[in-house]
Amino acid sequence: MAYVTIRDVALRSGTSISTVSRALNNSGRISPATKAAIEQAARELGYIPDSRAKAMRSTKTSLVALLVPDIRNPYFADLAYAIQDTLFDAGYCTSIGTSSENGEKQDAYITSMLSQHVDGAIIVPRGGATPAMRAIVEKNVPMVFVDRHVSDMHEVPVVDSDPAPGLSQALNDLHDRGFTRVGYISGPILDSPTFQEREAAFRTIAGTLFREDGIFVESTSFGHVSCASVMRKMRSWGVQAVIFGYSQDAIQAISLMGSRGFVIGKDISLISFDDLEMFTLTTPRISVISQQVQKIGSLGAKLLLDRVEKRGRAESQRVKTLYIPRESVAAAL
Amino acid sequence: MAYVTIRDVALRSGTSISTVSRALNNSGRISPATKAAIEQAARELGYIPDSRAKAMRSTKTSLVALLVPDIRNPYFADLAYAIQDTLFDAGYCTSIGTSSENGEKQDAYITSMLSQHVDGAIIVPRGGATPAMRAIVEKNVPMVFVDRHVSDMHEVPVVDSDPAPGLSQALNDLHDRGFTRVGYISGPILDSPTFQEREAAFRTIAGTLFREDGIFVESTSFGHVSCASVMRKMRSWGVQAVIFGYSQDAIQAISLMGSRGFVIGKDISLISFDDLEMFTLTTPRISVISQQVQKIGSLGAKLLLDRVEKRGRAESQRVKTLYIPRESVAAAL
Repeated sequence: MAYVTIRDVALRSGTSISTVSRALNNSGRISPATKAAIEQAARELGYIPDSRAKAMRSTKTSLVALLVPDIRNPYFADLAYAIQDTLFDAGYCTSIGTSSENGEKQDAYITSMLSQHVDGAIIVPRGGATPAMRAIVEKNVPMVFVDRHVSDMHEVPVVDSDPAPGLSQALNDLHDRGFTRVGYISGPILDSPTFQEREAAFRTIAGTLFREDGIFVESTSFGHVSCASVMRKMRSWGVQAVIFGYSQDAIQAISLMGSRGFVIGKDISLISFDDLEMFTLTTPRISVISQQVQKIGSLGAKLLLDRVEKRGRAESQRVKTLYIPRESVAAAL
Repeated sequence: MAYVTIRDVALRSGTSISTVSRALNNSGRISPATKAAIEQAARELGYIPDSRAKAMRSTKTSLVALLVPDIRNPYFADLAYAIQDTLFDAGYCTSIGTSSENGEKQDAYITSMLSQHVDGAIIVPRGGATPAMRAIVEKNVPMVFVDRHVSDMHEVPVVDSDPAPGLSQALNDLHDRGFTRVGYISGPILDSPTFQEREAAFRTIAGTLFREDGIFVESTSFGHVSCASVMRKMRSWGVQAVIFGYSQDAIQAISLMGSRGFVIGKDISLISFDDLEMFTLTTPRISVISQQVQKIGSLGAKLLLDRVEKRGRAESQRVKTLYIPRESVAAAL
């Protein structure tokens, strides 16, 4: 546990512990200038001057906060399950919060969990660094990012997947089957370094296998309309096989195509990121690029435990993606 | 907030607050008999005599604990989302824990959250009453059950669904289409009053529409093998349409039938409880008995808020199930 103590405030302000105590409790004589310096130091360090913090400071809570964007997305449900399972075996309970891909909710949850003095936090961040995320770092609460990272917070270790191996296997499969026109739908790419990296990997690898005029890339924002219009574009361009960087888009596309009598694996071949159970229930079953979410979850949990229990260097790790071919990819017409 | 105070211990032991304070802090003179009586009262009330509890007692944490059996089950993910959304609008953060249908994990999470002094708890219980659940009641922490109830904890209000309306609509549809042999697969029914009630409702309603020798009921435990053998039985009995009380069983059955070339809506008609997104992605789409999970979640959250903020009587409520027919139910052969 590394919460800011009254000793840290004394060190920072160049005073003694008893002077800090008098300043923060408004008791005893103290000069206005010293009081102001101490208050500024307390503010800068994020010192919590209540008795609750004092009582908790030396107490291990054995509670880890996990923040995911949307628990209804089965990929994150699988991730949360793996994390929680690993932490439970190590004697920690996991408290899951969700941001609904909403910065305000994300920060409200982080702030709430910080006030509960969790032993550590595992976060699937949305967007860039936020004040609450920076507060975790400033308070020295052990934290790791999983699945996604934040461009300007390189001090936080990350466990995520490397999109290249799975994309390479998938694109080679399409190439071997005789496809010449391949599409990529990159998902809600704004503010997401992860989706940006996937798209860049697709462009690089596809560029080594297909002609430039046979490669088509589009992004979607959230919502059905956008996904439908992107699929219309892909069809109008004569795209024979499409890879989805965001599984929620693939689900929408499958639903749209089903309702329009469009046959997957015949009219168009389809591959999605994420090995979701529902992709094995559709007809045909959907080929996927698995991120090996169980592995990401358990490695993320172990990395956090290393930080909480101060073992080793706790460095970032990447899990290789893996292509799993199924019937949604047929031979080119 | 309704944590046990030193005043409660004084009342219970028939002494004064200052006597209780002296007894529990081992300070000042006090007779051994009085001390024993006070310690017993403190124990019975679940009084937490540490400074942390003292500091927190008057502090609203604005945090609600939610416990679900398995976050990978999309029904519970939808439920958690609805609960959290309603609580967030009321200014509360939700901390989700999962029991993995495991009593030990359930109690570990409850105990951990109790030590965090949550404002209230919403629980989807598994099995019967446990020591940790009883501790919530004893500590007067506001609690509600959602989706399931516990037979021997009638003091806790419940928001769940009434299986009868949806089952009645579904069975009438099967009857109108000319089916004479209908099956019901009740899920992991042991220790689950909810699954037991669904099965009883099926038997009652089916009994008014079909001949006794046309009604077939089987239960499953968790795991593929059992689900496969139950489906084999149903087929060997000539069952034309089967209703699943537990959507996770239906998912397994759909997957099994797909891999064996068995066509739903032709070889057998199928209806499942729970309106899951994946049931609209399969071919054919699956008819469902919706529990209206968003409604259960928001009513459950509102009921908890009523208890936390001491409004109204906060009584149990039931949401009507609703039949949504789709292509997995065809005419009888």
